[in-house]
Amino acid sequence: MSEKAFQDYYPDYFAVCYGCGSMNEHGHQIKSFWDGEESVCHFQPKPYHTALPGYVYGGMLASLIDCHGTGTAAAAGYRAENRAMDTEPALRYLTASLHVDYLKPTPLGVMLEIRGRVKEVKGRKIVSEEWIVANGVITVRGEVVAVQVPEQLVKDLLK
Amino acid sequence: MSEKAFQDYYPDYFAVCYGCGSMNEHGHQIKSFWDGEESVCHFQPKPYHTALPGYVYGGMLASLIDCHGTGTAAAAGYRAENRAMDTEPALRYLTASLHVDYLKPTPLGVMLEIRGRVKEVKGRKIVSEEWIVANGVITVRGEVVAVQVPEQLVKDLLK
Repeated sequence: MSEKAFQDYYPDYFAVCYGCGSMNEHGHQIKSFWDGEESVCHFQPKPYHTALPGYVYGGMLASLIDCHGTGTAAAAGYRAENRAMDTEPALRYLTASLHVDYLKPTPLGVMLEIRGRVKEVKGRKIVSEEWIVANGVITVRGEVVAVQVPEQLVKDLLK
Repeated sequence: MSEKAFQDYYPDYFAVCYGCGSMNEHGHQIKSFWDGEESVCHFQPKPYHTALPGYVYGGMLASLIDCHGTGTAAAAGYRAENRAMDTEPALRYLTASLHVDYLKPTPLGVMLEIRGRVKEVKGRKIVSEEWIVANGVITVRGEVVAVQVPEQLVKDLLK
């Protein structure tokens, strides 16, 4: 694994994301890394992130899939161009669609491992699959379609 | 609209859900109601629920789709049996899969309207479509497949 997380390369206006921004003090601040051809992130939900007592609520799991998927897309975009994440031009991705299959209830109180793998890099679109492992068991599978956002569109959104 | 929300009928062990449980003081505590053939829920994210500054982060929107969809499924289950939500036997639903399409960035700082419509009631499975409206514009569309959980399975999960 590299030392700096994908999210540590995000510029300030991305780093406020509740799910993955290092600057959002209320948020989850997830950190994703390469682990060979897969990406990986570890996260332990808070005791109050419950569905039924003792299990993680679905929105949290969807958030982890979403933000880890977008981070994986960003890293994959640079990798596809064979350059580091701190080089220009900057590549920014937003989620176009998210799919989550809840296979089993995900236990609370354990460290979750979120893993990702890029399925397709096509123009501005990157599709990745993600899965969440709790106590060695895959409890959730998901897919994220991320789209690279032109710098001008980001500027327009921030006006 | 009825006076009592779908979620107000949840038993205690469901009412701790971070997304929709009235007993989770940290959570979103969403409230869903019938509005004719559609279900509706209003929710205003907090200022820190950001994606890019000024816009709602995707995980929150996915959570709203998920919990409003599950609530809609529960209400639809009772409606399909032509009985009130406080009658026995109790019907409890969990999300089997969630799909979210982010059509446009969703602005922060405005009341969001989450609407739902049942597409299919088939045995223990209920499929509903949801959409989120901000300032009169649909920004997100989603689909939730909810599955009724046998009471015994709930008991086993809570052991």
